[in-house]
Amino acid sequence: MLSKNKIKYLNTLLAKKTRQKYKNFIAEGDKICTEILNSTTVVPLEIYATGAWMEKNETRLLTLKGICCEITESELKKISQLTTPNQVLIVASQPAFHLEPNEIDEELVLYLDGIQDPGNMGTILRNADWFGIRYVFCSDNCVDIFNPKVIQASMGAFLRVKTKEIDLKELISKNIPVYGAVLGGKNIFTESLSEKGIIVIGSEGNGIRAENLHLVNKPVMIPGATGGAESLNAAVATGIICALFKNYTDNLWTQ
Amino acid sequence: MLSKNKIKYLNTLLAKKTRQKYKNFIAEGDKICTEILNSTTVVPLEIYATGAWMEKNETRLLTLKGICCEITESELKKISQLTTPNQVLIVASQPAFHLEPNEIDEELVLYLDGIQDPGNMGTILRNADWFGIRYVFCSDNCVDIFNPKVIQASMGAFLRVKTKEIDLKELISKNIPVYGAVLGGKNIFTESLSEKGIIVIGSEGNGIRAENLHLVNKPVMIPGATGGAESLNAAVATGIICALFKNYTDNLWTQ
Repeated sequence: MLSKNKIKYLNTLLAKKTRQKYKNFIAEGDKICTEILNSTTVVPLEIYATGAWMEKNETRLLTLKGICCEITESELKKISQLTTPNQVLIVASQPAFHLEPNEIDEELVLYLDGIQDPGNMGTILRNADWFGIRYVFCSDNCVDIFNPKVIQASMGAFLRVKTKEIDLKELISKNIPVYGAVLGGKNIFTESLSEKGIIVIGSEGNGIRAENLHLVNKPVMIPGATGGAESLNAAVATGIICALFKNYTDNLWTQ
Repeated sequence: MLSKNKIKYLNTLLAKKTRQKYKNFIAEGDKICTEILNSTTVVPLEIYATGAWMEKNETRLLTLKGICCEITESELKKISQLTTPNQVLIVASQPAFHLEPNEIDEELVLYLDGIQDPGNMGTILRNADWFGIRYVFCSDNCVDIFNPKVIQASMGAFLRVKTKEIDLKELISKNIPVYGAVLGGKNIFTESLSEKGIIVIGSEGNGIRAENLHLVNKPVMIPGATGGAESLNAAVATGIICALFKNYTDNLWTQ
């Protein structure tokens, strides 16, 4: 049974401000919620699910009875953001991580400068996850990582990829290559790529902002056909870049 | 001034059935609508725009006065599907094209088997456009190419890329390579790629259906890291595949 106040509270979690206040977020659907329950990265705080889902996950929920709330399909509709609500909604704690000095010195990481679309943000996390990139950093004008649409589009990637809002200049240490997806950059297919460094991706409409662009020391671009589209979708461009880095550093090309 | 009947009619165009009946579709916003007016691919049938937009495009609209309807911002809201309606909405004719025998024999084309998400479909058209792939074919269970969300996500690519609903087996001629994105396929980074042929992309949830899978004679996959995401987003995977084909056939790798 879901009280009016509870419904109201759950709906306030759609706002970044409220999520930040409570340091939590909402995830929905059987697949992502099961992943959350199996993960050690985030702590489930509240579980709203249909009786059928509760029954199917009885063993998994044994120690979580105190935070479970059985609801009907029609109650789920009132709190769900999905077109087709799917059995369960979980409120979980935002994973926090403290970036240690030199922690990313041996890593290849992504830095997102102003990604606006939650679908793109989630898809970029999924790209990173697929290609084994363990860190995705964001500028303060990106869409919130814990936006419900980002969580859904990431398909669980937020449980494995570490994310943090930070200024690009704080990330950069001496001699680190800073790649950036820039119109007019060097052809990424012929450029030598590094197995560590930062790859900067700009926003959908405006690319990388001037203050970050001057930190990029290796501008690259994905060559296209002439007379076609003006640009690639930001998540697609990121996917192509990640694929090329991953396979370049795996030395597959030189086999 | 917009009559109630007109609003009702425009809203019926959100249904594929109605669009097919009238062989038309809706596009919105300054950028795409301007591209439509500059294009020879589609014929604008009805133009609904604010006075300011009409004025800005006066020269372009000179010969189109008979199909122009000036509306207010609040009227635009009633017919727009965008979160932020943007000055203009155009109803245009669906571009039709008759596929000639042997027309694609020397082409590299995409075949989409059951792509469901309109955002993915539009983004795939945009990928094709960027990489100079001139034909995108679809199975009958794909989302409609003329769905407004596809049109918006394609960023005008539907004006340059030829699309058609067709069975895969009708497309295939003798000795043509039929690549397919398949889990367990060969590493696309090390496989030799052709400059002509068909690339089959499966649906978001289920991949390529059995009846089409047995037509694929070159299964390929994009290698990922272990322990990460289960899959890539369909539009991202298509983007990576297109990028690799395009650059392989451009011989950039061997330079």
